[in-house]
Amino acid sequence: MATESAVADALAGSHPTAREPKYYRVKQQLLGMMASLGPGSAVPPERELAVEFETSRTTVRQALTELVVEGRLERIQGRGTFVAKPKVAQILQLTSYTQDMQAQGLAPTSRLLNIGPVTADRDLAQRLDVRTGARVIRLERLRLANSEPMAVEVNHLAARRFPGLRKHLEAGGSLYNTLAQVYGVRMAEAEETIETVLCPPYEAEILGTDAGSPMLLLSRHSWDTEGNPVEYVRSIYRGDRYKFVTKLRPPAID
Amino acid sequence: MATESAVADALAGSHPTAREPKYYRVKQQLLGMMASLGPGSAVPPERELAVEFETSRTTVRQALTELVVEGRLERIQGRGTFVAKPKVAQILQLTSYTQDMQAQGLAPTSRLLNIGPVTADRDLAQRLDVRTGARVIRLERLRLANSEPMAVEVNHLAARRFPGLRKHLEAGGSLYNTLAQVYGVRMAEAEETIETVLCPPYEAEILGTDAGSPMLLLSRHSWDTEGNPVEYVRSIYRGDRYKFVTKLRPPAID
Repeated sequence: MATESAVADALAGSHPTAREPKYYRVKQQLLGMMASLGPGSAVPPERELAVEFETSRTTVRQALTELVVEGRLERIQGRGTFVAKPKVAQILQLTSYTQDMQAQGLAPTSRLLNIGPVTADRDLAQRLDVRTGARVIRLERLRLANSEPMAVEVNHLAARRFPGLRKHLEAGGSLYNTLAQVYGVRMAEAEETIETVLCPPYEAEILGTDAGSPMLLLSRHSWDTEGNPVEYVRSIYRGDRYKFVTKLRPPAID
Repeated sequence: MATESAVADALAGSHPTAREPKYYRVKQQLLGMMASLGPGSAVPPERELAVEFETSRTTVRQALTELVVEGRLERIQGRGTFVAKPKVAQILQLTSYTQDMQAQGLAPTSRLLNIGPVTADRDLAQRLDVRTGARVIRLERLRLANSEPMAVEVNHLAARRFPGLRKHLEAGGSLYNTLAQVYGVRMAEAEETIETVLCPPYEAEILGTDAGSPMLLLSRHSWDTEGNPVEYVRSIYRGDRYKFVTKLRPPAID
């Protein structure tokens, strides 16, 4: 029968009997060490860890880097490496970002980065049910939780259907409230897709992360109660700070 | 007004006006080139691309590598680089892997990699509602779709509640069928969490991918109709081949 730590390994995705590279063994040892420390606790410096785990600083650095990329550790410039806060868990439901974050006791804010017209290519035209080349409002926002940058969201809506939307949003209106109150849109359904992508340079700069680090890409396609498409959104969420949660029930019996 | 390709850029997560590193510009150019090619089409060799995009082979290689990691291109040993098939889109619902894949017209198979007892640590004990140190069945399976390795799934179930489970599964029974038919379990609800992690070495070897490449980690905690926890599962899905899809509706009005 395996030991408890073998179970912890197994849950961490490792296999208790497989031959492991050194950096990965150190990573598991670090996770074990971190389990007894709270978020914000300092991790000993590389050279001390190298002595403790009887390995090279290069190996320790590789293990630390993976834990930083995965959001288990946080490096603070000039201060050191610390145990990270748990990831923000967003429940997948058709609510606004504001409601999602408030439900978790986090203070949500949004910053309007860019808003302006673009023309629809074939794919976007099809999604928004407009003709190719039609005017589309492109809305780019930064999402924050407790002042920490979390996601860059790029939204697209048919310009013809929402005249004056830009003015409302530039005046500080929230998108879902504006759609409901000004345009009478009642959201009925959305399809969301979650995948992993590497962080593009522009988003990396805004989110304070490294280009090429793994991110969660959430695409949302929403329809109103009339069956008309409302928006097509692609959001890049920090992979080190975010996870999505969903409640499942068995599919309805036919 | 921006052009169509600016919209494509924006949708790809890039920003039309930001200053971009060279490799990222080449990546966008490659995506543009790939849009007109079907899955399985060969991509020209590095040196040709370097000439065409007026850049170094190193820059081309960086762009190609990101596209491979993201599952847009596929490298086949000794043959070259090809446009990848679209990602497999799994709908998030409380069904078996077999049903999920069949619904997409894919032939699903599972391979039992390991099954055996472990002892529950505190976290696992709490999830399965057993005491710390209790015997737990650890079930490790490889999931394939059309013979392609997709995920390594590690399941945990309370041993006391499912006596003889190992024998049934070693005899080739599917887990959900066995739970239903042998133990009378009716699944009622599950909570799933999706995040991104770096591929551990063991899973990389089994899935034929690189250790450290971004994966999707799906954790599932399931309960039966009596309100008892049934299983706690952690599955590592290939980030380059998989995406999760969910349909959302507005939360019920209180």
